Amino acid sequence: MSADPRPGAVERVRRAYARIAAVDRPEVWIDLRPQAETEAEAALIDARTAAGEHLPLAGTVCAVKGNIDVAGLPTTAGCPGYAYLPERDAPAVARLRAAGTVVLGTTNLDQFATGLVGTRSPYGAVRGAVDPERISGGSSSGSAVAVALGVADLALGTDTAGSGRVPAALNGIVGLKAAPGRVPTEGVVPACRSLDCVSVFARTVGEAQSALRLIADPAPARPGRRPGPWRIAVPAPAALGPLADGWARAFGAAADRLGAAGAALRPVDPAPFDTVAAMLYEGAFVAERYAAVGEFVDKGGPGLDAVVAGIIGAARDLPAHRLYADLAELARLREAALAELGDADALLLPTTTFHPTLAEVAADPVGVNTRLGRFTNSANLLGLCALAVPAGTVAGLPFGVTLVGPPDTEEGLAAIARLLVEPPVRLAVFGAHLTGQPLNGQLSALGGRFTADIATAPTYRLYALPTEPAKPGLVRVAQDGATIAGELWELPAAGLGALLAALPRPMALGPVELADGRQVTGFLCEPAALAGARDITATGGWAAHLRD
Amino acid sequence: MSADPRPGAVERVRRAYARIAAVDRPEVWIDLRPQAETEAEAALIDARTAAGEHLPLAGTVCAVKGNIDVAGLPTTAGCPGYAYLPERDAPAVARLRAAGTVVLGTTNLDQFATGLVGTRSPYGAVRGAVDPERISGGSSSGSAVAVALGVADLALGTDTAGSGRVPAALNGIVGLKAAPGRVPTEGVVPACRSLDCVSVFARTVGEAQSALRLIADPAPARPGRRPGPWRIAVPAPAALGPLADGWARAFGAAADRLGAAGAALRPVDPAPFDTVAAMLYEGAFVAERYAAVGEFVDKGGPGLDAVVAGIIGAARDLPAHRLYADLAELARLREAALAELGDADALLLPTTTFHPTLAEVAADPVGVNTRLGRFTNSANLLGLCALAVPAGTVAGLPFGVTLVGPPDTEEGLAAIARLLVEPPVRLAVFGAHLTGQPLNGQLSALGGRFTADIATAPTYRLYALPTEPAKPGLVRVAQDGATIAGELWELPAAGLGALLAALPRPMALGPVELADGRQVTGFLCEPAALAGARDITATGGWAAHLRD
Repeated sequence: MSADPRPGAVERVRRAYARIAAVDRPEVWIDLRPQAETEAEAALIDARTAAGEHLPLAGTVCAVKGNIDVAGLPTTAGCPGYAYLPERDAPAVARLRAAGTVVLGTTNLDQFATGLVGTRSPYGAVRGAVDPERISGGSSSGSAVAVALGVADLALGTDTAGSGRVPAALNGIVGLKAAPGRVPTEGVVPACRSLDCVSVFARTVGEAQSALRLIADPAPARPGRRPGPWRIAVPAPAALGPLADGWARAFGAAADRLGAAGAALRPVDPAPFDTVAAMLYEGAFVAERYAAVGEFVDKGGPGLDAVVAGIIGAARDLPAHRLYADLAELARLREAALAELGDADALLLPTTTFHPTLAEVAADPVGVNTRLGRFTNSANLLGLCALAVPAGTVAGLPFGVTLVGPPDTEEGLAAIARLLVEPPVRLAVFGAHLTGQPLNGQLSALGGRFTADIATAPTYRLYALPTEPAKPGLVRVAQDGATIAGELWELPAAGLGALLAALPRPMALGPVELADGRQVTGFLCEPAALAGARDITATGGWAAHLRD
Repeated sequence: MSADPRPGAVERVRRAYARIAAVDRPEVWIDLRPQAETEAEAALIDARTAAGEHLPLAGTVCAVKGNIDVAGLPTTAGCPGYAYLPERDAPAVARLRAAGTVVLGTTNLDQFATGLVGTRSPYGAVRGAVDPERISGGSSSGSAVAVALGVADLALGTDTAGSGRVPAALNGIVGLKAAPGRVPTEGVVPACRSLDCVSVFARTVGEAQSALRLIADPAPARPGRRPGPWRIAVPAPAALGPLADGWARAFGAAADRLGAAGAALRPVDPAPFDTVAAMLYEGAFVAERYAAVGEFVDKGGPGLDAVVAGIIGAARDLPAHRLYADLAELARLREAALAELGDADALLLPTTTFHPTLAEVAADPVGVNTRLGRFTNSANLLGLCALAVPAGTVAGLPFGVTLVGPPDTEEGLAAIARLLVEPPVRLAVFGAHLTGQPLNGQLSALGGRFTADIATAPTYRLYALPTEPAKPGLVRVAQDGATIAGELWELPAAGLGALLAALPRPMALGPVELADGRQVTGFLCEPAALAGARDITATGGWAAHLRD
């Protein structure tokens, strides 16, 4: 089968709440809606679908960053004292809902969307999806992690300096934003009003692209691109500046993959982009944050993040003439940057520079943030669109690249990204690799991500093996079989190969038939291992067995 | 004949310098080029024309506001201490020159283009073309007066708050500016860099339109207007606020004339335009002036205009967050203003509110300036184009209206303006109505303007009549005739009628044959008056006679 059959909306909502409980990341959410409420909403979606209505997002659930209005939930922007109760959804939310998605709730963020770290919030620092010792990235921290952990299919973020891209890279998912102005920002608490973009997180390029199409205003007519293969501008490694160990090599590999797929690579000097990026916080542009919430921040009060308040408060006295000077300088640099791009379809950049730990951020909150934004800060000042995509893993952590393109070329960027992202392969897990189990981290480290809760066809039995750590053995039987619960994960083909190469006895990988008829690769075990093992089929699955 | 035969470029240049001497307005110029130099340049134009080259502006002379680069002349921006010597012409100047015009020199202005009065300059206050007790308006003061007095055929100004429109209105000429960005502003000392427009002054709509076409970049393709008669939005008289005596009536008459010519008039609430206009100096936008020249002004020094320095210096401490707030407010007001315009082709406004004397400006330099900008300040903030045209006279002084339209609709505005501007009629004068003579002011007061120095066909004789003031009598003779020097003026038909109705004996108006074969209306006299009058034909003309 080429695509997963999509469950009904109610079923999808139930799985989402189960997954929320399973992943145990309470800091992801600021306001999670009651399950009864979302299930009721989902039931209406199912009824409409059953009546023949086509809703492109029916059977999906989404998360919305806490600085975007969702009718009925407080809009906090990460600051409880700032909260207000919006009467209606922001247009981006309304458009997704009209397409049939169910909003689960509002997610945590760096307060007032000021930060790229995900730690600047009185609702708690959001931990990285793969390694909870590391940051999620931000400011759209909760939205990115909700998608990365398979809780939500889609999430809305916002992106001013890179808040829709850095957390995509650090959590191994896709982050997509159009040029400023294409998605309405009504109902969004402004960070820098003239630069803010509503962005989309998803696990695949196609899902992100579809969601952006739904929330964006129509693009103005533009001349077509010059024909020929995709033209990708790629900075020389030396021009990228300091990167985490192995990241320059991973970046080079991503470029090579594009070249091997037929794209025409060309060198580019990223200097004007770097200079623009530095202007975002070093110049007068940060005063736009003061214009948005400065008076509120100046009053002080509980729940203000000290780092955020410091950044915004310091912008109070920036003079307007300096802003004019910066705007003029930006116009010059934009010309230089666009000249550097020429007729390239995209600029390829690492999405960010390293993946800090929570402790590193605590030790140097502003310095680390600055380093994270080096490649993202320029896009909105330059009026460009950008697509952040996973590009493998380095030392067990996601590595991502970003394609930056002219306004309204997000469809082209998506097509280019597909050259880069190999189709993932599926893996059914039933024991120690389940969410929360000891070996689950292996899957994340190999670039894997949770896709769905699954069950086998009723033709299996499950045994508790005498291994360390404790593992179950799944065995297909000719009769007296049962349905066994598990999880479906996706991971890069290379990741699956690496997993297999390191597999210890008595485990094996092979085809497993699911309850819905699909056949996927999954964990099995050698028959010999069953000697002396306890039959736990009656529990229905490893997780239930452990709870017994 | 339908058009004046254009003299050669050298001849035109010579006439310009003669006219400069005749009008005796030294404050119009900051740097006037040596006549030998401009004549040599004109000779090259004539040679190219003679060789068959088509130069659309061959045989014209122009003046350039002193904040626009003219290669070889200092760019002063009205401040000698700021002056620099540009290596090349600003693009707007270069484009006019490439079309064959000869630049006479650089003109006086309100320093740093900061003002609408024409008095804020160490090079002297520029007096109004019609009434030297009154201001020229500014900041493009010298350029407007050079055109109004018939010295230059065209002049370049700049327009940020109305500097290309207010002086057009106060001197009875045409001022045209495209939307910001259409004419390059390279080589222009910025006032507010993001708002500055290079503008054009001319005596007719057609000449202004042709010149703007030459200096503007191509307009982007836009959807056409909705078919139908021209749609003109006209504020109710009460919404216009205080105007000089008679101006509201003159404004109503202009609107009526458009309606009578077939335009569809519709009411409009000018409130959003008024609010935007007030923001230009009351808000943070003035900090853009500080960004341009603030550091220079802060150093102090000779030649700084105290009022200008005060305005710019006070902008130093405006905070950037206030600028962001103003920009957001402007975006809201722009939406409201454009909604008010709807699908109207133009908004009709008085160009300014009154015509102050030099003394009134000296008594309240900032207050008067503010009143002058009420109708002009908004156009560039809103990104609109505008055309200021004469609309008759009130109490002997020019009254003007402005058509404000969407970006890139200047051709449409010109077509509408032609409904408003009746074709002027010509009048040849030979005596007391010549420039500098006692009755010359009558012509200006009737909306007249100098067009050219002329000479009659060699079939006339001239007599000194015993009148008070002294006047000559021009008489056509069958033989022994001679060529008599005079001036050709243009004035509204109504003005000519008024002049004729008030004509004292023994003067008469009738056809006069010119040396170039044209027949125009001119001053003659009753034959009876010649009895006892002295024949002064040998002097060649009244002016020469008076010098004898």
